Amino acid sequence: MSLAGRVTLVEVGPRDGLQNEAQTIALGAKLQLIEDLAAAGHTVIEAGSFVNPKWVPQMADSEAVFAGIKRHSGVRYAALTPNLQGFERAVTAGADEVAIFAAASESFSKKNINCGIAESLQRFAPVMAAAAERDLPVRGYVSCVLGCPYEGEIAPRAVAAVSGDLLEMGCYEVSLGDTIGSGTAGSMQRLLEVLLARFTPAQLAVHCHDTYGQALSNILVALQHGITTVDASVAGLGGCPYARGASGNVATEDVVYMLNGLGIETGLDLAALIRAGNRICDTLGRASGSRVARALDLTST
Amino acid sequence: MSLAGRVTLVEVGPRDGLQNEAQTIALGAKLQLIEDLAAAGHTVIEAGSFVNPKWVPQMADSEAVFAGIKRHSGVRYAALTPNLQGFERAVTAGADEVAIFAAASESFSKKNINCGIAESLQRFAPVMAAAAERDLPVRGYVSCVLGCPYEGEIAPRAVAAVSGDLLEMGCYEVSLGDTIGSGTAGSMQRLLEVLLARFTPAQLAVHCHDTYGQALSNILVALQHGITTVDASVAGLGGCPYARGASGNVATEDVVYMLNGLGIETGLDLAALIRAGNRICDTLGRASGSRVARALDLTST
Repeated sequence: MSLAGRVTLVEVGPRDGLQNEAQTIALGAKLQLIEDLAAAGHTVIEAGSFVNPKWVPQMADSEAVFAGIKRHSGVRYAALTPNLQGFERAVTAGADEVAIFAAASESFSKKNINCGIAESLQRFAPVMAAAAERDLPVRGYVSCVLGCPYEGEIAPRAVAAVSGDLLEMGCYEVSLGDTIGSGTAGSMQRLLEVLLARFTPAQLAVHCHDTYGQALSNILVALQHGITTVDASVAGLGGCPYARGASGNVATEDVVYMLNGLGIETGLDLAALIRAGNRICDTLGRASGSRVARALDLTST
Repeated sequence: MSLAGRVTLVEVGPRDGLQNEAQTIALGAKLQLIEDLAAAGHTVIEAGSFVNPKWVPQMADSEAVFAGIKRHSGVRYAALTPNLQGFERAVTAGADEVAIFAAASESFSKKNINCGIAESLQRFAPVMAAAAERDLPVRGYVSCVLGCPYEGEIAPRAVAAVSGDLLEMGCYEVSLGDTIGSGTAGSMQRLLEVLLARFTPAQLAVHCHDTYGQALSNILVALQHGITTVDASVAGLGGCPYARGASGNVATEDVVYMLNGLGIETGLDLAALIRAGNRICDTLGRASGSRVARALDLTST
């Protein structure tokens, strides 16, 4: 295994995590979480989403979140933006970068955002133009890269097509989302072999869900293919491993524990991360979704 | 990744799994589990343990278990034997193979079985002699190969020493146990590099616990180093991912799901395995420790 010496974690807990939590979370708790994550060493934190609050009520206070963030130098605070209106809100709020999204599955795209993949990309053209004008970095998310709840397996060439479109539109990086967590080390390898024939590892990130317990082994395969950017959600926010219906974001603590064991630098303080995750879980009134957090808590008592 | 085309799973649920469950399990439930596991395609099932019932009350009925097994051709039913007395009981009961055990950590050995590593191996000499006389295969377990609750990290050379001793004593295979589950892809790789300088992959198996969520990525590294025998416990029996104090055997279903995705044959029927795991979990009155079992159950309802 020849692995990179350093990997960047993109912390998606405050956005992708919290937006999938059932209960309303107070602004103060969100700000505390974002502060804790920056203090633990994160350099990229997805802090909010400027979508219609009708669809994602959990993110309705994203303006207030961005206004309340105590900025750390060297940390990029990112926001998801579904359209030009959301983009303008994100810019006004002070987002350092924005993210747009598309699916690798035509059916998922239609069910999720009510239009096909090609149309969804066209809708983002004004966002890309506005971002270019302001010199704001745009990240692209692709969902369902290793499986779709409606179509089952997704062909790597479909992922390559939409990833290529997003990069050509100006995204600096594409985050490959295993939205339903059904991917394996094998399907991740097959996907990356196709993608890396066309893109560089630096253009790609992985965003693995742990619904089937495969996230870390899938991430390991990505690292072995030269990927150096990994999305993760502290405490596995957004998915509870105990409950059915878990969306199952991989827990940042578990990824960092593996990376530490591999001797890969992340700049993150694992103990501080665990405390950050435990604090938000206390607020939410549930156990952490991180196995490492639970194991280390156990051994320390 | 150049991986083997076929991997053998050693099912340890009925022994290593159930012996760590708190509640008493009826003989009929154990026999049903063993039958379900054989029907799902397992070829090696650790069915019981002939240790002093005072220490492991859960295994006190191992004679009755072996007497009650409906034998499938091509399936080896194995038993753990701590000494010559236990070995004789296992042979009388009809075990197809036996297992002996030692620790890679001197402190763990002393705390666990009240003697050092060297003495523990000497104690097994009569078992090895009796097994050779009867031409009965003996498997060796080594615990704490990637970490010890008392000593912390364990040097790969300590694991190599005890593994070499067990193989020289006549064990056909050594199963490398990450007893506390603290190993990572990195420490597994470092261990195997040392071991494979001295032993062949066919002499080694891995026995990973999922306490820190690292089991599948550790197993993947083992596969990438040519290991083709993997221990696992259906439904993660013996460790509950929800509870503190979980011993955390990796769930057979989760391993098989990964192997299926890698295109590696196991001869196992995943759906039948999940049903086997769900049935014993219903008996135990708890949710399955297998993420795959929970995810697939979810998507089918």
